[in-house]
Amino acid sequence: MTIKAVVFDAYGTLYDIQSVAAVTEEAFPGYGELITQVWRIKQLEYTWLRSLMRRYQDFSAVTRDALAYTLRVLGLKHDAASFERIMDKYLHLDLYPDAQATLAALQGRKLAILSNGSPDMLNTLVANSGLMLDATISIDSQKIFKPAPQAYSLIESVLGVPPAEVLFVSSNPWDACGARAFGLNVAWIERVTPEAMALACAKSDLIAPLTMFKAIRTQMDELGLAPDYRIHALSELPELVARHER
Amino acid sequence: MTIKAVVFDAYGTLYDIQSVAAVTEEAFPGYGELITQVWRIKQLEYTWLRSLMRRYQDFSAVTRDALAYTLRVLGLKHDAASFERIMDKYLHLDLYPDAQATLAALQGRKLAILSNGSPDMLNTLVANSGLMLDATISIDSQKIFKPAPQAYSLIESVLGVPPAEVLFVSSNPWDACGARAFGLNVAWIERVTPEAMALACAKSDLIAPLTMFKAIRTQMDELGLAPDYRIHALSELPELVARHER
Repeated sequence: MTIKAVVFDAYGTLYDIQSVAAVTEEAFPGYGELITQVWRIKQLEYTWLRSLMRRYQDFSAVTRDALAYTLRVLGLKHDAASFERIMDKYLHLDLYPDAQATLAALQGRKLAILSNGSPDMLNTLVANSGLMLDATISIDSQKIFKPAPQAYSLIESVLGVPPAEVLFVSSNPWDACGARAFGLNVAWIERVTPEAMALACAKSDLIAPLTMFKAIRTQMDELGLAPDYRIHALSELPELVARHER
Repeated sequence: MTIKAVVFDAYGTLYDIQSVAAVTEEAFPGYGELITQVWRIKQLEYTWLRSLMRRYQDFSAVTRDALAYTLRVLGLKHDAASFERIMDKYLHLDLYPDAQATLAALQGRKLAILSNGSPDMLNTLVANSGLMLDATISIDSQKIFKPAPQAYSLIESVLGVPPAEVLFVSSNPWDACGARAFGLNVAWIERVTPEAMALACAKSDLIAPLTMFKAIRTQMDELGLAPDYRIHALSELPELVARHER
């Protein structure tokens, strides 16, 4: 079956959200990694909780709330300027090093982002990083976050490509499962292999809970769904698409 | 306004889910606390994700999946018997020490549980702990978990008491917010004060990520909602209800 569109998740998939750790570490020495992990957990939780409670606020607001929560719970005093400096990093995230070359190799197909991000955040981020895409789709018009089916339905309504001809790419296990539940073809990027994870866990005598914070975002979830493809980097995509079409 | 019904969340509110830590510690020495925290995070995530994906499975299945995930990611080998021994603890959780006396002091009003738990799990748990309630309500009939409004709507449909005359009690911040969003009167049990949390964080030179795992379950969330009442133990409820009715 032909793949007419390759659609990417943004945060954690094309863009490295761990790249905020340098900024949080600068603002709060010794806490950078911990802030980054807790912030991400809460950011995701708030998207799901607000969706279920029918109290949608856009991703920009949710991301601010999650950062405010994190700093409050850690008891970290801060001024408005340092808060804004951290938030600003979300508009200047690093692309994964193989992102540009992968998109170039996939030209000829429709290429897009489908993200929880608000239109403002996404458009600024895409412009800042110089990505060339056919569409940057925010779930904002649906007022419900992924993994709700209404979010994934935007791919067909915006690009005009039915699910069977779409390859959706995400490194987020829950996102890969949500897309699969909706009926898209899904490539999940397993950036941390179980072997690497086991090694990281075994390294410390008492297991490092910080490693676990990361683990619960990187390892495939038990949601009764499996992605069609499991890859380890964006750079595997051109070959995967060719194989899928054979 | 009269309170005609007091409705309790079960897990973490009437029943101490941290009491599984002893069993997990026995099965996997050194890992008890970590397993308990990760298991709980994933259990909650899976309820929200399955609700949003419209792939409901009951709480028993979700709890098993979350435990399987936790042991897999930690690389902990186990046999079916030790897995079942841990799962079984969910049917024999300890009541908080003030639970029975609080319920006794609230007699004369309708008293109930509204929980994500499956009917089987809840009925066994309530029977094992000897609680006397007018109703044990599972969200299972709605096939969607809290904090979806459909879950909270079961209080009125089962007890016949409208939201304005219900006091809902939960120690889970997201549950307190969900109930508030639905329009119930809400008492949130803050079992770990910000001061105690700050103290726990300050105790260790490098901040203890395990403390953070707990923190992100006990501290009030930033969801744009506030509970009507903030208490520190179930035992404060009789006085609170009397005050509310004055």
